[in-house]
Amino acid sequence: MYPKSLESLIESFKSLPGIGAKTAERLAFALLELEKEQIEVFSNSMLEAKEKIHRCSKCNMMTDEELCFVCSNPARKDSKVLCVVEDPKNVFLFEKLDMFHGKYHVIDGLISPLDGINPEDIGLDKLLDRIRDDKFEEIIFAFKPSIEGETTSLYIKKILEGLDIKVTKLASGVPIGADMEYVDSLTLERALNDRKIME
Amino acid sequence: MYPKSLESLIESFKSLPGIGAKTAERLAFALLELEKEQIEVFSNSMLEAKEKIHRCSKCNMMTDEELCFVCSNPARKDSKVLCVVEDPKNVFLFEKLDMFHGKYHVIDGLISPLDGINPEDIGLDKLLDRIRDDKFEEIIFAFKPSIEGETTSLYIKKILEGLDIKVTKLASGVPIGADMEYVDSLTLERALNDRKIME
Repeated sequence: MYPKSLESLIESFKSLPGIGAKTAERLAFALLELEKEQIEVFSNSMLEAKEKIHRCSKCNMMTDEELCFVCSNPARKDSKVLCVVEDPKNVFLFEKLDMFHGKYHVIDGLISPLDGINPEDIGLDKLLDRIRDDKFEEIIFAFKPSIEGETTSLYIKKILEGLDIKVTKLASGVPIGADMEYVDSLTLERALNDRKIME
Repeated sequence: MYPKSLESLIESFKSLPGIGAKTAERLAFALLELEKEQIEVFSNSMLEAKEKIHRCSKCNMMTDEELCFVCSNPARKDSKVLCVVEDPKNVFLFEKLDMFHGKYHVIDGLISPLDGINPEDIGLDKLLDRIRDDKFEEIIFAFKPSIEGETTSLYIKKILEGLDIKVTKLASGVPIGADMEYVDSLTLERALNDRKIME
């Protein structure tokens, strides 16, 4: 039914992770409404981004330079706090908050033996070398609250035992503003166990 | 914060009608997860679709041939029923239903004097010529139920007066499956006025 070139365009949009048939159609139609010049810019920006973006040689973050914007920031040079995340996108999330001014390290996902993802698959060697070499004083695990997140942080914590490093992780609990009835039972259990004394 | 080439890619996604900042970011990250070859195909399909897709010389529908898939379909050649739509996308919607086997004509939007869109701006001449030349017996207006849709169909109907043509429009009313409490009052009023005798 669709003209062949439109069909191919829809297929391309469908190849994006998380984009279904309906959204792909909507995006393809939206694209065709742009001017030819805009589409050329778009098409180039796709190729260029893929070409130029690689991982920071120090922290594994996305960058199109040798070092990412955090590692190359002189104001952060002396920070001894390292926040470990499972995905480069999470660094952008934290940076948008503008509340953490330490360093980051991006690992390639979380340990998940059931999915065949073992410690050696997620770049932990590079992380551990960096922790030892740069003499960090605190490591913050900022993984998603899950069995895999727990496994990964416990695994790294175990290896760091004996070094004089404070190891922390993000607090879990009831999200601010959430209606209690929509909070899942695991989160509620965790919030109860980790309850804080009011002072 | 974002690497420059990623920033440009996000900007490109944002240029798509209906795509906000958050979605543009999500799509840009999703794109970077594709293989280089997939991105090349994607990038080409954008250029090619824009290049090849134009309007059917007969009915104004999107096509990459001289005539669209409806106008070139021999099984529909003799149909004397013409469905008039305001957007090429609506032809695809109808065709997915596979319930209408007549012909279509796409006009360029609806008359809307407040937005400065007058009858001469939406290609009505071509439509009227076609209706007269091809001796259609029924014209169905499939515009969205709105003042603009109403204005446009009344305008065309008026011009067709005197010709022996049945002029119809889609029924309006309560959508099937809708909860009554969520139906807006205009729709409800229309559904009440247009109530049908049960037989």
